[in-house]
Amino acid sequence: MKLRPSRVLTVLLLAAAFAFAQAPPRHINPLRLWSTLEKLSEFGRPAGAGFEGGVTRVGFSEEDLAARAWLMQLMRDAGLEVRVDPAGNIFGHRAGSEKFPTILFGSHIDSVPHGGNFDGDVGSLGALEVMRALNDKKVSTRHPLEMVVWTNEEGHHFGRGLLGSSAATGLLPADVLARKDEEGKTLADWLRRYGQDPARLADARIPSGSLAAYLELHIEQGGVLDESKIQIGVVQGIVGIHWWTCTATGFANHAGTTPMTRRQDALAAAARAALAVREEVRADAGRQVGTVGYVRVEPGARNIIPGRVEFPVELRDLDKEKVLRIWARIEKRFAEIAKEENVKLDCVPLQADEPALTDTAMQADIRAAARAARLTSLDLPSGAGHDAQQIAHLAPIGMIFVPSRGGISHSPREYTSPEGFANGAEVLYRTILLLDSRLHAKP
Amino acid sequence: MKLRPSRVLTVLLLAAAFAFAQAPPRHINPLRLWSTLEKLSEFGRPAGAGFEGGVTRVGFSEEDLAARAWLMQLMRDAGLEVRVDPAGNIFGHRAGSEKFPTILFGSHIDSVPHGGNFDGDVGSLGALEVMRALNDKKVSTRHPLEMVVWTNEEGHHFGRGLLGSSAATGLLPADVLARKDEEGKTLADWLRRYGQDPARLADARIPSGSLAAYLELHIEQGGVLDESKIQIGVVQGIVGIHWWTCTATGFANHAGTTPMTRRQDALAAAARAALAVREEVRADAGRQVGTVGYVRVEPGARNIIPGRVEFPVELRDLDKEKVLRIWARIEKRFAEIAKEENVKLDCVPLQADEPALTDTAMQADIRAAARAARLTSLDLPSGAGHDAQQIAHLAPIGMIFVPSRGGISHSPREYTSPEGFANGAEVLYRTILLLDSRLHAKP
Repeated sequence: MKLRPSRVLTVLLLAAAFAFAQAPPRHINPLRLWSTLEKLSEFGRPAGAGFEGGVTRVGFSEEDLAARAWLMQLMRDAGLEVRVDPAGNIFGHRAGSEKFPTILFGSHIDSVPHGGNFDGDVGSLGALEVMRALNDKKVSTRHPLEMVVWTNEEGHHFGRGLLGSSAATGLLPADVLARKDEEGKTLADWLRRYGQDPARLADARIPSGSLAAYLELHIEQGGVLDESKIQIGVVQGIVGIHWWTCTATGFANHAGTTPMTRRQDALAAAARAALAVREEVRADAGRQVGTVGYVRVEPGARNIIPGRVEFPVELRDLDKEKVLRIWARIEKRFAEIAKEENVKLDCVPLQADEPALTDTAMQADIRAAARAARLTSLDLPSGAGHDAQQIAHLAPIGMIFVPSRGGISHSPREYTSPEGFANGAEVLYRTILLLDSRLHAKP
Repeated sequence: MKLRPSRVLTVLLLAAAFAFAQAPPRHINPLRLWSTLEKLSEFGRPAGAGFEGGVTRVGFSEEDLAARAWLMQLMRDAGLEVRVDPAGNIFGHRAGSEKFPTILFGSHIDSVPHGGNFDGDVGSLGALEVMRALNDKKVSTRHPLEMVVWTNEEGHHFGRGLLGSSAATGLLPADVLARKDEEGKTLADWLRRYGQDPARLADARIPSGSLAAYLELHIEQGGVLDESKIQIGVVQGIVGIHWWTCTATGFANHAGTTPMTRRQDALAAAARAALAVREEVRADAGRQVGTVGYVRVEPGARNIIPGRVEFPVELRDLDKEKVLRIWARIEKRFAEIAKEENVKLDCVPLQADEPALTDTAMQADIRAAARAARLTSLDLPSGAGHDAQQIAHLAPIGMIFVPSRGGISHSPREYTSPEGFANGAEVLYRTILLLDSRLHAKP
């Protein structure tokens, strides 16, 4: 059969229309977005490695300092008014047409040691891209917009994560400046290196009422979106994290001469305890998780019965009451194990971060933004902690997740595709504009 | 009633006879024995502590060197002909009346770090006291007698215990001289500090046929004698020690974002494995013991699911076949656990010391010696390793145990009473004389 020109044209037109209908209409620039991410990855890249070699850019390091200086220049180049607060948080301001409170969005750029190039970076550079795209399209907003890069989210130093966002919400303990890290430096020392005056740390607090909303784009750090091939996660909330430190105290003795019936083996008790934690967490339906992440054994030799074992218990869920119910069952199991093993088994609470629910109206905005960009979305909790959970004390929050390959994070193998990253930045762009028109709308 | 002088005398005589019958008749001098032990405890005593503060006198240390010099002088003072072999073993020779092979007895004086004043010291100073008592009583023996102080029994350096006795039996591996300890020193370096020529190490080998028997007095290091209030342990043999190193390999992941159903938790697998070891060891009747002495977790943080766990398995028994049967069951359990946990679980054998049985005729000699000294005795295995197990390759061996309070050893709290120690030295004295008359007796 010979093809007639009119029929060819019809087919081509239909194909173009179909392609247009399928391609997510985008306001942001995916290539600029990805190349900025690649550039950021050079700060803290392992010697001789490429982008896929991950990054070590822990908060307050030289690498962190250099990356911050570079990013602030890009922010200024995007016409933002850049300021650094006394906690080292970087803000980039874009004026609005009205005297409304600010719509804030951002994330962090510090990493864990041997981390990846997505955790934090995606949200920070996604925020920068939104500002750039708004400029490209000469969009003006009613609300002032601000992007933010929070200080020391991962908490490599001082074992205190979410540092900048905690300072912004006045949630830091009084003694925080005097705390020393493993190098013997205090937080005050580090803040001075960031050019800040530690005495002014309290001034980092964001005044109540000055924020209209906070949005954070982030990689999922779990495998749910990746596995189900869904493009956007609408975060329902950030789970509460409860930490206990437990100690099993038995009696260290000679492994050759102490009969099996006369042992007070702290490791056997701890092994049973770790398995009991898992059983009790699994016993309820739901998405709660529980972890025993290490076991420290003393004296810790092949030929000595363990006398003392320390291990942590971590429980996470969006529902605090559920966590406490599970913990009560775990404590009961521990008491039984201690009795049966003739070992002391004590736990002390170390920290309990409350769950932070996201704003349901903002969840709907994100869902609508994804739909408009022709992206699939799924509601899900965040099992990981984020700066957003601190800002929830000040303003309604929303979080957008993009898929994370295999759910891997805090690893050089952490990966989100250029397309997945662009999808997230596009939804961030659209959600900000939806918020800008919805909030402070005339009745 | 008025007491008549004749009746008083009768009562006194009966009381004296009764006291004589009850008191263990002793050839050794308990006070000299104990004061020598107290003096030895000063070499390596923690600053500011007393005898009860324990000792740190690891093999090849300055403290060890000083203690050896002091002890060699006491040996010379006791008329012994002292020589040091190329492995640093100290021998003290007392001539016999016949050209018979030697009856050898002794132990070691090196300790573990933060150890006690009895493990090794009791056998070494018990041997010295036997020599002194034989001199006091002008006893001559048919066999030459030798006391010995073996080098580096505890193996603090190089992780290789029983060093001197292994050299004496030619059981050292070829590369031993080049091995470095954590200070970067080789065994050759240490032997030079002991005034020895490392090139002559092979000459430390004791010629086959030159020993008639080997006897070692030692604290039990277990709680059996102490608990049952029995004065002397007749050792049936030294258990074989089998070591494996096992690795559980799962997948390290975020503890908040990884659902319970998608985890490959190496620590959960290791916990189940450690409990399986205990169950399988307990499943058989007998005195076998099994221990998991440590667990090393990577990455080892509260908020990361453990990806890799290393743990050792140690099994001990007098019967090697039994150990291997139990291990086969453990391996089967490990395979099941690995499958259920979706974790790799591999074990590699690290070391297997064969059990060393004591000579049954020498067991009978020790039993007879205890009975003659009016001491109670019990046959039992040694769950701990001793230099005697190496010498078993050269000659019939016997071991005498004295009670160890609470079964504690390798600790400053290690304790044997002066009376308990004297009982052991007395039985050693008597056993040597029984051996001297029994061995090479005319038909």
